Amino acid sequence: MSAASQNSVGIVQPQVFRHEMPFSLHRGKSLPNFELVYETYGTLNTQASNAVLICHALSGHHHAAGYHHADDSKPGWWDACIGPGKPINTDKFFVVSLNNLGGCHGSTGPGSIDEETGLAYGAEFPRIVVKDWVASQALLADHLGIHKFAAIVGGSLGGMQALQWTIDFPERVHAAVIIAAAAKLSAQNIAFNEIARQAILSDPDQGLGLARMIGHVTYLSDDGMREKFGRELRSGDPNQGADVEFQVESYLHHQAKSFSQTFDADTYVLMTKALDYFDPATEAAAALEEVLANTTSRFLVMSFTSDWRFSQDRSQEIIDALIAARKNVASAVIESEHGHDSFLLPIDRYIAVFSTYLDRLHDQICQ
Amino acid sequence: MSAASQNSVGIVQPQVFRHEMPFSLHRGKSLPNFELVYETYGTLNTQASNAVLICHALSGHHHAAGYHHADDSKPGWWDACIGPGKPINTDKFFVVSLNNLGGCHGSTGPGSIDEETGLAYGAEFPRIVVKDWVASQALLADHLGIHKFAAIVGGSLGGMQALQWTIDFPERVHAAVIIAAAAKLSAQNIAFNEIARQAILSDPDQGLGLARMIGHVTYLSDDGMREKFGRELRSGDPNQGADVEFQVESYLHHQAKSFSQTFDADTYVLMTKALDYFDPATEAAAALEEVLANTTSRFLVMSFTSDWRFSQDRSQEIIDALIAARKNVASAVIESEHGHDSFLLPIDRYIAVFSTYLDRLHDQICQ
Repeated sequence: MSAASQNSVGIVQPQVFRHEMPFSLHRGKSLPNFELVYETYGTLNTQASNAVLICHALSGHHHAAGYHHADDSKPGWWDACIGPGKPINTDKFFVVSLNNLGGCHGSTGPGSIDEETGLAYGAEFPRIVVKDWVASQALLADHLGIHKFAAIVGGSLGGMQALQWTIDFPERVHAAVIIAAAAKLSAQNIAFNEIARQAILSDPDQGLGLARMIGHVTYLSDDGMREKFGRELRSGDPNQGADVEFQVESYLHHQAKSFSQTFDADTYVLMTKALDYFDPATEAAAALEEVLANTTSRFLVMSFTSDWRFSQDRSQEIIDALIAARKNVASAVIESEHGHDSFLLPIDRYIAVFSTYLDRLHDQICQ
Repeated sequence: MSAASQNSVGIVQPQVFRHEMPFSLHRGKSLPNFELVYETYGTLNTQASNAVLICHALSGHHHAAGYHHADDSKPGWWDACIGPGKPINTDKFFVVSLNNLGGCHGSTGPGSIDEETGLAYGAEFPRIVVKDWVASQALLADHLGIHKFAAIVGGSLGGMQALQWTIDFPERVHAAVIIAAAAKLSAQNIAFNEIARQAILSDPDQGLGLARMIGHVTYLSDDGMREKFGRELRSGDPNQGADVEFQVESYLHHQAKSFSQTFDADTYVLMTKALDYFDPATEAAAALEEVLANTTSRFLVMSFTSDWRFSQDRSQEIIDALIAARKNVASAVIESEHGHDSFLLPIDRYIAVFSTYLDRLHDQICQ
């Protein structure tokens, strides 16, 4: 694939939205102002009715589709699903993709200067919760002249943001597409996040690499890893001493190294904490179906058979609550052996369900 | 439970076996001599036909049952299964439980003095493979006057040792009981071990704690963690800032701290490497059923429904190979929500299957 390929959005240019007013955070602190870096793909129609918001997951950012330079070797992280003729069809929709508050790819975050101290916030950056992301995304939408999104779409932590949108701004969402997500994390998920955080706290550089290794292993399925690596040795003979390495080890070392060079440890801690504490039902001291009672959007909820970090049972909890609340909900469980990472991949049935749902939505609300 | 309880082996005393001759290791190096610390429970009969060998797993040791002191708060690690009237019934069997070579509980290992340098071996301790453990256990058996074990029993890495025994010393094993094990690790398992090793290599103390955290999370099932911890907060209100902690985090911190105080980082690396490289079929460049062709023992293979580190599919591979090799194999898949740790627990059906098998074995060969 290249920047010139027909189903790519092509070369894209990040932009910056600056909110000049103080922004109060849910946990009590505030930011004197903030910036969000974002990209857009496609064209906003005159009624501003065809906008789709992309919410990113733990290690994501604003660059979801297309290329920054003609010689980029890889497109944006969700290029499989965003572009002309793809599920989030840029011939039809105007797509907005941002780097979340607290991120490390250009939006205000731990790497930004705290005006009070003149130093980077680092670990002192205020705690962010999913509601804060949604509130800041709403300000970006205002700036772009989008009152109501045709769809708000996200996988994993991104799906949690889509769900929070339907609760906090029901009148601003036509459809929420919630993929490989959960209404709250399980104890196991919190535990994996805590291990990653402890690794980072004991050594930010090495720890970030370890965190990424844990992510990679837990986002893939056992079967998927078997197919990808088996027990292949990178070199040599298992009977010839200690220097040989399994392919999977070599892969993990590479992933750890490149991640720790491009990601920020404080952002990783901040985002995993946002994940852990996401729990709109407990926060409202109510059942999930009661929390969802005031939502007015329609919902598409998708999960993948081999995803054990965000299993289909977690998606089913969301679906059950939506049904109990008498909402318009479509759902699909997609066969895949690629674990949690499946939501990033061009899996035939996934692409078909996703495309059909958004095409129909477009026909109904954007004409 | 206390040392005085009726189904306990009571107060036990570790003993030391010293092998004074050089011991050649499978990977080429050798030890000038070695010591194994071990315990025994029950009485060896005059024909020496009622001996059972316990093989321990990654973090195990020789103290499998009973108490060292009358005021010990906890018994040995497999007290649920070893004792009067328990599956490994000390009224009938003479049980031998050792700390493996390379261990950190008294047997020769990284903490021992290298006679050539006068310093502790540390990370320079020679690489150990499962075959080395089996060979050293055979020398311990010789010392104890046991030519043939009634049963060799182990869970997880212990089950791999039991399987290796049937291949290396077929004439010395009546029955192998292989629980929650595998004929080789999956890429996912190797990956988790590598993450633990990387954590240790970057910081031995903190890393050992992280390794233990990873072990705990992956040895429990998602459902088991939900039942044990849910999303309970240790204190306070999730809306009140950054200091609150989920119960599961507090538990993991405690486990990490106590493990890093009692276990040795070099032993952990050594034992995970032994696990990773265990693969008798590939080592023989043959199918598993061919490798098992010369075994003469009977087999009991057990696995647990919620164990995802050593799933029932891995046990089924062993069972299928044994059937293909026309061996005497019994098997059971035990319903449990406690994941890999299930093999340590007094689960009714597990205890029933385990007891019945060994009782019948005793009736047949030890009278």
